[in-house]
Amino acid sequence: MKKTSQLKQIIQSQNLDFIMEAHSGLSAKIVEETGFKGIWASGLSISAAMGLRDNNEASWTQVLEVLEFMSDSSSIPILLDGDTGYGNFNNARRLVSKLEQRQIAGVCIEDKQFPKTNSFINSTAQPLADIDEFCGKIKAMKDTQLDDDFIVVARVEAFISGWGLEEALQRAEAYRRAGADAVLIHSKRPDLVEIESFMKEWGGRLPVVIVPTKYYSIPTKRFQELKISLVIWANHNLRASIDAMQKISSQIFKEESLVHIENSIASVEEVFRLQRAEELQAAEQKYFPSMKKDSGEDL
Amino acid sequence: MKKTSQLKQIIQSQNLDFIMEAHSGLSAKIVEETGFKGIWASGLSISAAMGLRDNNEASWTQVLEVLEFMSDSSSIPILLDGDTGYGNFNNARRLVSKLEQRQIAGVCIEDKQFPKTNSFINSTAQPLADIDEFCGKIKAMKDTQLDDDFIVVARVEAFISGWGLEEALQRAEAYRRAGADAVLIHSKRPDLVEIESFMKEWGGRLPVVIVPTKYYSIPTKRFQELKISLVIWANHNLRASIDAMQKISSQIFKEESLVHIENSIASVEEVFRLQRAEELQAAEQKYFPSMKKDSGEDL
Amino acid sequence: MKKTSQLKQIIQSQNLDFIMEAHSGLSAKIVEETGFKGIWASGLSISAAMGLRDNNEASWTQVLEVLEFMSDSSSIPILLDGDTGYGNFNNARRLVSKLEQRQIAGVCIEDKQFPKTNSFINSTAQPLADIDEFCGKIKAMKDTQLDDDFIVVARVEAFISGWGLEEALQRAEAYRRAGADAVLIHSKRPDLVEIESFMKEWGGRLPVVIVPTKYYSIPTKRFQELKISLVIWANHNLRASIDAMQKISSQIFKEESLVHIENSIASVEEVFRLQRAEELQAAEQKYFPSMKKDSGEDL
Amino acid sequence: MKKTSQLKQIIQSQNLDFIMEAHSGLSAKIVEETGFKGIWASGLSISAAMGLRDNNEASWTQVLEVLEFMSDSSSIPILLDGDTGYGNFNNARRLVSKLEQRQIAGVCIEDKQFPKTNSFINSTAQPLADIDEFCGKIKAMKDTQLDDDFIVVARVEAFISGWGLEEALQRAEAYRRAGADAVLIHSKRPDLVEIESFMKEWGGRLPVVIVPTKYYSIPTKRFQELKISLVIWANHNLRASIDAMQKISSQIFKEESLVHIENSIASVEEVFRLQRAEELQAAEQKYFPSMKKDSGEDL
Repeated sequence: MKKTSQLKQIIQSQNLDFIMEAHSGLSAKIVEETGFKGIWASGLSISAAMGLRDNNEASWTQVLEVLEFMSDSSSIPILLDGDTGYGNFNNARRLVSKLEQRQIAGVCIEDKQFPKTNSFINSTAQPLADIDEFCGKIKAMKDTQLDDDFIVVARVEAFISGWGLEEALQRAEAYRRAGADAVLIHSKRPDLVEIESFMKEWGGRLPVVIVPTKYYSIPTKRFQELKISLVIWANHNLRASIDAMQKISSQIFKEESLVHIENSIASVEEVFRLQRAEELQAAEQKYFPSMKKDSGEDL
Repeated sequence: MKKTSQLKQIIQSQNLDFIMEAHSGLSAKIVEETGFKGIWASGLSISAAMGLRDNNEASWTQVLEVLEFMSDSSSIPILLDGDTGYGNFNNARRLVSKLEQRQIAGVCIEDKQFPKTNSFINSTAQPLADIDEFCGKIKAMKDTQLDDDFIVVARVEAFISGWGLEEALQRAEAYRRAGADAVLIHSKRPDLVEIESFMKEWGGRLPVVIVPTKYYSIPTKRFQELKISLVIWANHNLRASIDAMQKISSQIFKEESLVHIENSIASVEEVFRLQRAEELQAAEQKYFPSMKKDSGEDL
Repeated sequence: MKKTSQLKQIIQSQNLDFIMEAHSGLSAKIVEETGFKGIWASGLSISAAMGLRDNNEASWTQVLEVLEFMSDSSSIPILLDGDTGYGNFNNARRLVSKLEQRQIAGVCIEDKQFPKTNSFINSTAQPLADIDEFCGKIKAMKDTQLDDDFIVVARVEAFISGWGLEEALQRAEAYRRAGADAVLIHSKRPDLVEIESFMKEWGGRLPVVIVPTKYYSIPTKRFQELKISLVIWANHNLRASIDAMQKISSQIFKEESLVHIENSIASVEEVFRLQRAEELQAAEQKYFPSMKKDSGEDL
Repeated sequence: MKKTSQLKQIIQSQNLDFIMEAHSGLSAKIVEETGFKGIWASGLSISAAMGLRDNNEASWTQVLEVLEFMSDSSSIPILLDGDTGYGNFNNARRLVSKLEQRQIAGVCIEDKQFPKTNSFINSTAQPLADIDEFCGKIKAMKDTQLDDDFIVVARVEAFISGWGLEEALQRAEAYRRAGADAVLIHSKRPDLVEIESFMKEWGGRLPVVIVPTKYYSIPTKRFQELKISLVIWANHNLRASIDAMQKISSQIFKEESLVHIENSIASVEEVFRLQRAEELQAAEQKYFPSMKKDSGEDL
């Protein structure tokens, strides 16, 4: 099945599904090997990995290059955290074409203004996008996609920016009419109050996606009861890798030695395995005459 | 002090120094915050993070873009693992110019052929570069650098490819005469036999750099006794992050919940700190009129 | 003299000076060889050469890559047509750092909103930037530059958007106070009415730059009398190349032959000369042992 | 019809066909508008436009980015001048995947070594590729393509490097057996001697492609008589644009005025037309609410 159709199925199915953050070709492969059905290409994680802020400091083509690596190294669908679409409707529709070329299955855009700020930073000062303009953006994106199954998720930032349920519902409904395939309702509260109030009124008009980064302690059973369609574990591979790198760097710095390190981290052979070094060795036997005589003795 | 001068000092000082691998803007910053004096931009790690093999599957400008992120997010010198220089002397001297523009302090090139294969894969089948050609490459690089303190390290793969001490010494001496600032003697043995034999004969003609990935169990004291100049911890941040991402992905996949995760990984606030979100909030107060009224209430 | 200092001198001198558009490494070299003192890296031309519109369809890093080629192939200063700075103050100051790394001498930003539209398309519908926000952007850029001589030109689009002299003057003065090194007063009229009215009131508070694309028939003597500092010939290399390519393609298509073509266009040897093929041949003699025996017989 | 199928048809048809060089999105569009059935993405032209030499100074991903612009701005097939495939079989097969993603219809690789030198520079000093290795490269490329109609042309440099007919025939036959879809027989002679001798012996085993840059005075009728399949006009848009830019720059520099220029070059409106500015204006009416009130009054 095409990656787009896989993602469509995940979003439209009655089950609660989960996709996991990745920010590089390597982490995308790890997410797939773990068993997840899809990958969240997080804007926060991709920018943080670059050493940049989540404020569109990276250009959209720099993000695109990361996405291409991610797509090439995995076979499950990728949903891009596409910020605001990186400009107006014209930038957003151009993005769709570029994503389709790279077999990215869908994109989520949020109703804020370019350049964006992360939803968990100074959030009430962040103005929302004009509803009509945002709907025009969604329409332009849907009209541009060549593959019918390409997914556009509209992310509603009304709760994040301090507006209430009414604003959230009005926006979600407008985005639905503009052609969005799903809505992502974002909340920075540690509880489910906002999400619950939305789900009660929404009545399943479109699949709903959530990101429980701030309400991490809510049991997943509650999401199922609310008929949430998709949960995004949004930044945990990045955060795990930060913790691991800080610890290993610190230990090596202090001990000035690898003696106690070697067995606590992935082996060099595991790196080679993830890179599919073996496939290349086999290909060398097939395509590279000077290699034919040598066996791959020491891999 | 300029980054190049810092690296020169590290290499030329009598002390044994250590630099730590990074493969992204983020990991470069972590290496610096840990206290290391310099960063090893590993070819293996950068390609693995991209989801590619260590066989020049990434183009040299894709590597350059990663280096630019690394350089921008750190203030300590970066030594690039520059493979073979990505082609002949002309590609290698062009690389030097591009590295200097991005404040990379030095580059290490190895005496193999483009495209390269990782030294720990099928190594005896890897032909070495012609000595004269490799010396021409070193000369071209040294003649090209604008900053006198830019460092070119010549990596001797003679032991790796199954040649003996004589070949290693002959090459190291030729590279020294061609203008290299240091030699990196690489060995895939689990012991110090090759390195020791080289150091005994070399007599300190140029600083020597080593990469104890395979002889990790050798105590660092031995490197000091041998008057090694610089030790590269070559891929351990990558390997720690692989392990961490595999574990966290697996745990979240199984538990379908973040409840037991939140406190075992870096916090979202720590991500923001590493991205220097606060500097931007301060700058918004200074440069962005519409933000002046809002306080950064929820960072 | 540094490229930045050269551009500063051009802008601050009492003489009327001229810079010429380029949109590629090749055209930049041609501008320099012609004798011009500086290069205008035109947003219209660069996007058109890419096959894109002048509406920020190219990402800012794609523009940056073109600039790097231009800077590498020329030794005269380049002034970038930086649109709106590609976002807010934070994007604009990041741009300054990236330009300085690539030895670009200055940037001109215009007081419109991202994504921009070309000033000659549907111009009265284009809203201007908020003055305070634009001044914050200028301040952020000037505070960011490391080289004192890096130039920031503030482009006033008040006339273009249908506002009058008062708005133009108010904006120019605000931008001057914010730290701009010069103002560019843009006009789409075929005559000098707007420019003249501005110059009369401005009184030389800062150097003034103009772009006579639409008032091309005005004799240059008038610009001198008005004490204009710098004239930008903004898109003429691009337009000449379009005309030439359309004609040669058409002729070859019709004639299905090169017989009548060869002497009407630059020779292959001229291409090699512009690429500095000879320098490489000399370098091969010096650095590439296997080439030493062969003479460059057929260049 | 898919672009690949179009190119396949061009190459396999009994007619002599012609494709024309382009080196940018803009020139690709001009080639298409002229009426040509296909585009030659010339390595010489693309590198020259960048201000670089035809010696793999640009990375292969920088070339790829130009190709993406070319493909996006045209609807006829593009055949890439892929040099040596930018490395070994592994680089070449990776290239095929990247080309297919960008809807490039085919690639021509030449039997020389990386980094390449232009065939008209110091040619007899250029060693040919090992036949077996080159055949492995062709096989790897053909095995990698997902689209059956993707074209791989094998370029035989035997005549260029001073070898005779026998070498050329032996190589062409080996490449045919390895799976090449056509052979390109290159010659730097001003006459047809080499090409004729080859065609006589070849006997139509595979379609033959030629590049008459050096034998430009030979009437096209001769190519038809020899049953050549495809003629590449290899660099004439670039050379026409160089000539035009040198002349216009020189004239503007001397005259310090545009008065005599405006009507000798493409108009600004023609630039907008080539950029498809009108499509965007129509789209703004459809998707951008704030633009709906304004008519596109001054385009």
